[in-house]
Amino acid sequence: MIGWLNGSLLDGTRHALSVSDRGFLLGDGLYETIRVTNGEAAHLERHLARLAHGAAVIGLPLPAVDVAAAVAAVITANALQAGSLRLTITRGSGPRGLLPPDAPDPTLLITAFPTSPQAAAAHVIVASRTRRNEHSPLAGIKSTNCLDNIIARLEARDCGADDALLLNTAGRIAEASAANVFALIGGVWLTPPVAEGALPGITRARILETGGREASLTVDDLLNADEIVLTSSLGIRAVKALAGKDLPANGPGASRLARVLFG
Amino acid sequence: MIGWLNGSLLDGTRHALSVSDRGFLLGDGLYETIRVTNGEAAHLERHLARLAHGAAVIGLPLPAVDVAAAVAAVITANALQAGSLRLTITRGSGPRGLLPPDAPDPTLLITAFPTSPQAAAAHVIVASRTRRNEHSPLAGIKSTNCLDNIIARLEARDCGADDALLLNTAGRIAEASAANVFALIGGVWLTPPVAEGALPGITRARILETGGREASLTVDDLLNADEIVLTSSLGIRAVKALAGKDLPANGPGASRLARVLFG
Repeated sequence: MIGWLNGSLLDGTRHALSVSDRGFLLGDGLYETIRVTNGEAAHLERHLARLAHGAAVIGLPLPAVDVAAAVAAVITANALQAGSLRLTITRGSGPRGLLPPDAPDPTLLITAFPTSPQAAAAHVIVASRTRRNEHSPLAGIKSTNCLDNIIARLEARDCGADDALLLNTAGRIAEASAANVFALIGGVWLTPPVAEGALPGITRARILETGGREASLTVDDLLNADEIVLTSSLGIRAVKALAGKDLPANGPGASRLARVLFG
Repeated sequence: MIGWLNGSLLDGTRHALSVSDRGFLLGDGLYETIRVTNGEAAHLERHLARLAHGAAVIGLPLPAVDVAAAVAAVITANALQAGSLRLTITRGSGPRGLLPPDAPDPTLLITAFPTSPQAAAAHVIVASRTRRNEHSPLAGIKSTNCLDNIIARLEARDCGADDALLLNTAGRIAEASAANVFALIGGVWLTPPVAEGALPGITRARILETGGREASLTVDDLLNADEIVLTSSLGIRAVKALAGKDLPANGPGASRLARVLFG
């Protein structure tokens, strides 16, 4: 697929990044995963607002680029009707060490992906090897520091599961490795607050705007829920088993949610 | 300076990394900073052992490369007598998402830097914006997920300070943004245990082998210490003030430690 890097379209397999890019060396970056449907980037304004918030948190000056135009150019170049885009921004190249240059020249990369097959209902474990740090501002932004999430996902794979829930350092539910988690309890979809280490997901926000509520959740709460779903910008995935206990996957609640949010 | 990437020497400013490198996209990597002195990489075997441990923790298969030979080639190519090397390894390119490919093809980059000027005694703050997550295995390895450290360092800069100490989620001392911290208390150099979120530094290990001891430390412990130093593979830096309180910088303890460890 055709990508976009710092102002130009490029072959998406190119070796085009500097060996001194702070994104590569220090994880000094942010990203967004954006759903493309009917040839358009869904909820692009929400993604760009979250990106701007993340940039403010880490002190990364956003480049003066019309990102919406770049996104449209990538969609057009790939004639992409349905799929996803990944927008990655890093603080660009710098000298040795943690401290950024006085005037960073950020790297902005957009890559495109065709539609992924609809994921089947998931068997989910609770990650035992790592915890999400709700005491870090990184928990509330979409940074490229994904190794805890990768470790959780590898643990799930090694158990024959599809995904893993991360607990926060207090032992309560934070999120899945690359999705928010919602539990249907007493007829209401509940999800952990951002202060518990949940990423403020775009689909999560849309559910909260249509009747969902934030609530601190324990593993026991989830095990006793009527239904559980994982939500991301790419869609909703029902959970059919948590930590070995079967749950009613694709129940009426999950089906209704998917219909309302993704048509 | 001349670097080394995946088997070949290269101009250290080259744009040679794939736009799908997981190090860039997901922070899926590890690094080492190695001191070069008298044209040799100091304590290289310790650095490579730590790298191998980190790779095991994140499940990254190390490439079958003679890293010591590559390190020597970079030193020779730059006629580097004194300075430092940075060795970065990532899980290489991959498809969309967190899960690595079944057979990753890691990226291995070595870059070289001339000697940095000897850093003056440091004014250090206690970072207030973030905490180090001692509940994650990442706290014990040198991963490229450095954003918490960058945030702490930026806070120090914004306060006119040189560096920041990170507390762990329990509120005890973990480490500085890119160094371990030692406090001289009762005639013994004390440093937080790895279980408190301290990176197992190479210089830290050498101090522990010559009389230093691990101990849980609070900010109050440090404020009442006789001396404080920051230690990294590149050297020892005395602390002249902590959180606004003056300390005896370059006291007899720090001078002796620097002489024993770095000659």
